[in-house]
Formats: sequence, C-alpha cells, structure tokens
Amino acid sequence: MAPVRRLVVDVLKPHDPPLLEFTERVSETDSVDGATTSLIELDQEVQNVKVTVEGDALDMSAIESTIESLGGTVHSVDQVACGEYVVDDQPTLQDG
Amino acid sequence: MAPVRRLVVDVLKPHDPPLLEFTERVSETDSVDGATTSLIELDQEVQNVKVTVEGDALDMSAIESTIESLGGTVHSVDQVACGEYVVDDQPTLQDG
Amino acid sequence: MAPVRRLVVDVLKPHDPPLLEFTERVSETDSVDGATTSLIELDQEVQNVKVTVEGDALDMSAIESTIESLGGTVHSVDQVACGEYVVDDQPTLQDG
Amino acid sequence: MAPVRRLVVDVLKPHDPPLLEFTERVSETDSVDGATTSLIELDQEVQNVKVTVEGDALDMSAIESTIESLGGTVHSVDQVACGEYVVDDQPTLQDG
Amino acid sequence: MAPVRRLVVDVLKPHDPPLLEFTERVSETDSVDGATTSLIELDQEVQNVKVTVEGDALDMSAIESTIESLGGTVHSVDQVACGEYVVDDQPTLQDG
Amino acid sequence: MAPVRRLVVDVLKPHDPPLLEFTERVSETDSVDGATTSLIELDQEVQNVKVTVEGDALDMSAIESTIESLGGTVHSVDQVACGEYVVDDQPTLQDG
Amino acid sequence: MAPVRRLVVDVLKPHDPPLLEFTERVSETDSVDGATTSLIELDQEVQNVKVTVEGDALDMSAIESTIESLGGTVHSVDQVACGEYVVDDQPTLQDG
Repeated sequence: MAPVRRLVVDVLKPHDPPLLEFTERVSETDSVDGATTSLIELDQEVQNVKVTVEGDALDMSAIESTIESLGGTVHSVDQVACGEYVVDDQPTLQDG
Repeated sequence: MAPVRRLVVDVLKPHDPPLLEFTERVSETDSVDGATTSLIELDQEVQNVKVTVEGDALDMSAIESTIESLGGTVHSVDQVACGEYVVDDQPTLQDG
Repeated sequence: MAPVRRLVVDVLKPHDPPLLEFTERVSETDSVDGATTSLIELDQEVQNVKVTVEGDALDMSAIESTIESLGGTVHSVDQVACGEYVVDDQPTLQDG
Repeated sequence: MAPVRRLVVDVLKPHDPPLLEFTERVSETDSVDGATTSLIELDQEVQNVKVTVEGDALDMSAIESTIESLGGTVHSVDQVACGEYVVDDQPTLQDG
Repeated sequence: MAPVRRLVVDVLKPHDPPLLEFTERVSETDSVDGATTSLIELDQEVQNVKVTVEGDALDMSAIESTIESLGGTVHSVDQVACGEYVVDDQPTLQDG
Repeated sequence: MAPVRRLVVDVLKPHDPPLLEFTERVSETDSVDGATTSLIELDQEVQNVKVTVEGDALDMSAIESTIESLGGTVHSVDQVACGEYVVDDQPTLQDG
Repeated sequence: MAPVRRLVVDVLKPHDPPLLEFTERVSETDSVDGATTSLIELDQEVQNVKVTVEGDALDMSAIESTIESLGGTVHSVDQVACGEYVVDDQPTLQDG
C-alpha cells in the first residue's frame, strides 16, 4: 500500500480532556510523527477541532482509535496525502 | 508523447470506500508518484473531491480506471501540466 | 528577433479532444518545453481554457497551428514575455 | 509523552502588569524558549491578548500558573503542536 | 545620470501588430534586456496593455519610439526604478 | 530577565519633531538596534504612528522616555516578543 | 545619529518633469542608492506619487531639496527606517 503521509481531519470532541492532552495523545499514536490541532469553534458541550497529522506511514485506524478513546469523533476527513512524497494540493481556477 | 506530470481532477465518489482508502488506491496506480485529495463538499449520497496527482509520465486512463473501479467519476479535468518540467499556471490580469 | 519565453493565451476549444490530449499536443509542439492548461469555464459546446506555455524561443504560429488543428481558437493573448530572461509582470498601484 | 512544541492561547488579563512585563514573565517560565504576545482588544478593565509560546517540551501547567499569578486567565487554547517536529496547520478547502 | 532599471507603462495600442509581435519589438529595443506585456482590456479599436521593461540602463525615448512606431501611445508611466539596484516599492499603511 | 527582542507600539505624537527626526531619536535610544515607523493617520494636531523596534535586549523605559521627551505618548503596546529568539505570532483559525 | 536607511514619502508634483526624469533626479541625490516611484493618481494639474528611497545614510533635506527643485512637495512621510539594519514594519492584529 502507498504510505499515507499527511491527514487533515475535522473532529468533534468533549471539553475534557482539554486540547493540549488530546493533541499529546494523538501525536503519541503509533505511526504519528507530529500533530497540530487548531480550534475551529466551541460551544457548551463540544469543541470542533481541525487536526493535521504527519508521519511516514500513518495508521488511520490507530489515529481514529485514539480520537475515539478520548471521546471524540471524526466528523470528516478533509485532506489526505499518499505516495512517495507529499503532493501539494494545487490551486486552480475552479477553487471556490 | 510529452509526459503528463501533474493532473488536477474534480471527482464525484460514493462515501464508500472512504477518502483515505480512495487516495491510497489512486496513489498506487501505475505511473503515480503521489496523490493528494481534498474534500470540496459532501451530501447524503456523494463526496465531491479534488484530486491532485503527480508522476513522471502519468497514465490518465489507468488513473481514471482506478477512480471508476472505486465507484467514482471524473466530473472535470481542471488542470494539466505536460512537458520537460512543470510549467506554473501564470497569474494574469485576466484571471477572474 | 528577441526570443519569446512565455505565453499565456485564452483558448476556446471543443470538448473533444479532451484537455489532457489537448495539453499533450500543445506541449509537443516544436519550440515548446512545457505547457500547463487550466479550465476556466465549460458549457454544452465548448471549454474555455487558459494555456501557459514556456520555451527558449517559442514559435507562436506553430502553437496556434496546433491549437487550431485540435479545433480550438485563440480568443486572446493575455501575457507575453520576451528577451534574455523572463521579466516578471510588476504589480503597481494602478492594477485594477 | 510527545513533547509540546508550540502553543497559542487566548488570554484575558488586567492592565497591570502591562503587556511587556507579562510577556517577559511568560517567556521566563520554565520550559519556554520564547513568547510573543499580540493585543487583540482592550477595554476599561481587561486586555484580550493572543500568546504564542515555543519550546522543546512546553510545560502547560507552569505556563498557566505564570499567567494566573499575573492575574490572567486562559480563555481558550487555540492551537497546539506536539511531536518530533512542528507540523504546520494545513490549509484546506474546508477552512471557513 | 542614475540608470533606469525598470519601467512599468500603460499603453494603448491598435490590434495590429498583435501583442506578441509588439512585445518582441519592445524587447529588441536598444537598452532593453526583457519585456513582459499583460492585457488589461480590449475593445473594438484598441488594446490597453501593461508593459514591464527591464535593463541595466533603459532608454525611455527609444522605448517610446518603438511603441509609437507600432501605433501605440504611452497612456501613463506607472512605476520607475532608478539607481544602483532596483528598490522595491515598499507597502505602507497608507496604500489605498 | 528574558530579553525583549521586538516591540510594536502605537504612538500619538505632535507634528514636531517630524517623523524622520522622531525615528532617528528612537533608533538612537540605548538598547535599540533599529526602528521603523509607519504613519497610521494624521490630523490637525497629532500624528498616529506605529513604531516597530528591535534589539538584543530592549529597554522599554528608555524607549518610552525618548518618545515622551519628543512630546509623544504610547497609546498602546500592540506586540511584544521575548526570549532566546523571536517567536512569530502564529496565525490561527481564531484570528479575527 | 542613527543612519536613515529607507524612506517612503507621498509627493505631489507637476506633470513636468515627467515621472522618469523626476525619479532619475531623486536617485542621483547625494546619499541615495536607489529610488522607485509609483503613480498613485493623476489629475489635470498634478501627479500624486509614492517615492521609496534607500541608502546607507539618507539625507532627507537633500532629497526634499531635489523634490522641491522639480516643483514637487512632500505631502506626507509614510515610513521611516533607521538603525543598524532595516527593521521590517511588523504586521499586528491592530493593523486596520
């Protein structure tokens, strides 16, 4: 299988554990070299968070398990980069 | 024939297989060095996805076969780069 | 004559041949090192396409012949770079 | 634990100590290599400040203690980067 | 005299000669290393074109002669860079 | 104390001394390596000016003394960078 | 005195001498390494021009003399950089 090198997912998570611990746990997941999380929105119950993950051969099911073990759910997968290297998403005249 | 070095296509695909597996399969297609997919929009039935593919001599019909074998259809070809190297699309005063 | 090093043209073309074959053919034209095409708009009958072409001494009439042999027409020439090197179009306070 | 390498937090603080002393104190906190603060908004009573902190293994509770000892409160954690290196938050077509 | 190193001029020209030949002729003018022209607007009678010219010591009157010999007129001079090197126009908070 | 390496302050100053002399004086202040001032707004009585100052260990009270000795007042401190190196203010999805 | 390394001034000038000659003359002024002028606006009587000047130790009164000897007036000084090196104006969340 071609290795998955970068993933961007949109996650809904409870306030606890807080974003810092959540990010530490995602970045410690097997296959993950690093993770960056950005707060999109928060309300009374949940935080909506964007998670960017990089590694040489990311294991999506391990990442998803970590997220779910922390009470979160992957709301959508927004970008996936696979192959020998990371291909940049190329801007075109058709982008919205 | 001048080699095709980069392709950007707009694809409609069912939710299954999910974007991760879809991207792995496209990037494993013969002639493809790497592929990055970005979610444009999703509704009940389908996902609209932007696919950027790079390689030294891309085989479009192989790529299209992969996409179709996964239940997807190429809705439009949005950018094509051919030749000895990748020429950047040059911004002009006529861009919309 | 000072060599033409980059050309950006706006082309109307039929749907057939598709953009991939169209771009391969333009990039194989004598004097062309590489070509990148970007879809601007498509309707029932035609595709409106932006074509960026680079080479050491581009032969415009050869390029135009290729485009016309594929059923296309050059709608406008949007940018031309000539000389010892490619001069960048310089942004000014008068740009629209 | 995977080291925390960058944190961006949104802080509410009283006018005293002023932003300069506040920033010096945050950057002197154990584990912090450097800190940059940017004023978001100020009113009669409080300053709303964005704090970006970097280090090889940031200690969030020490940073929070410093902020609280200066009368401030962390209103939200807006970005967290963990792992072997800082992964850049990747722009996608889903960003607002 | 301090050498003129870059000029941006706004030109009105007839449709004939076309932009390609026009640009070739400008770039062949004595003192010019390279020229890039960008279409601003076209109507029935004329083309409005932005011309960026570079050289070690540009000769404006030679450039203007070339433009006029091709039926064009310099509508305005939009940017001039003179001196030992090209100073970049510096963006400020006063730019419109 | 962690050294202050960059400061951005918003200053109200009278028209006299003019911005050039004002900037020279600020940049000559002990601890300052360089200063750049940008005009934000001017009215009959005062100039509103943004001042960016850099140094290895900036002395804010010396800088403020210089500004006040020239008739100016620091209206707000907009950014402060402290530590072993200058940490860039990191853009997030929460920026206004 | 700390050397002035860059100046941006807003100038009103008559149409004659034209912008090219005006820029040559400014860039030949003692202490000036290079000058770039950009047209902001023109009406029947005057041109409003932005002038960016660089040098190791700019002499403002010499520059102003040159501008005035050409019939121009400095309408405002929009940016001044002084010191051992050019400090970049730092963007902040308070910029308009």
